Amino acid sequence: MSDDRGWMQLAIDEARAGRREGGIPIGAALVVDGTVLGVGRNQRVQRNSAIRHGETDCLENIGRLPAAVYRRATLYTTLSPCQLCAGAVLLYGIPRVVVGENRTFEASESHLRAHGVEVVVLDLAECRDLMDEFVASEPALWNEDIGVEDGAASQRG
Amino acid sequence: MSDDRGWMQLAIDEARAGRREGGIPIGAALVVDGTVLGVGRNQRVQRNSAIRHGETDCLENIGRLPAAVYRRATLYTTLSPCQLCAGAVLLYGIPRVVVGENRTFEASESHLRAHGVEVVVLDLAECRDLMDEFVASEPALWNEDIGVEDGAASQRG
Repeated sequence: MSDDRGWMQLAIDEARAGRREGGIPIGAALVVDGTVLGVGRNQRVQRNSAIRHGETDCLENIGRLPAAVYRRATLYTTLSPCQLCAGAVLLYGIPRVVVGENRTFEASESHLRAHGVEVVVLDLAECRDLMDEFVASEPALWNEDIGVEDGAASQRG
Repeated sequence: MSDDRGWMQLAIDEARAGRREGGIPIGAALVVDGTVLGVGRNQRVQRNSAIRHGETDCLENIGRLPAAVYRRATLYTTLSPCQLCAGAVLLYGIPRVVVGENRTFEASESHLRAHGVEVVVLDLAECRDLMDEFVASEPALWNEDIGVEDGAASQRG
């Protein structure tokens, strides 16, 4: 768990960098055999991106990997994965996901667990505070990122 | 159905372009209110990409859209969506997916249908032939794209 908290800090640093850029403060890191292979952060604002969430941006920054490497990986993400990012975990057979917090959003944990993925939720105040501040200041941007129509309630766990 | 076959041709053209580039021949198109918003094709080889499958490349080429637009969309894809691309469909609430073929690969159709997505399979020989030729000539590349370890059987429907 203390190792998990340390690796999560890389994801949190990414989230904070994203917020400073005017983006959505969600970050991720992929760790294999005690080494970080890469990090990423949500790029909706910065790159006009529909698919670079924290987790998918991390995988894309790393680029192509053999299937066997993903099978030994842990994916750290400051916020519980959306369906897209959970799909990436399942496609590549990533066996373990460590989540900073899931109170702001949770849409895939039971699906991941049903497919044998270990999901660990750290429930860190630092991650919750980042999202609380962001969702309060940019509700339309947040809803866009999770596919929710403006005016509808955002999806909260 | 005849409209679907016509729109699917845009996805097939993308798949063929990808194969000419040395890439994986899977293409996609997003159609809303009778207009194509964009197309895409698998970019594993061309962009060293881990997340730009046909469908996700299509969404990324289009860029940010309001949630309400995705809710009126049909996604055309030459091959049945993997878990990542199905996750994108669910994230954005795309209500309808038209599939060129699902004999080479099928990993998400029941999951999509369980979440209310209409999945139409055209089962086109043209799409099957593209994948048959590709999988036979580049089995390692194909396994990498679907997260299968070399030496293991590739996932076939």
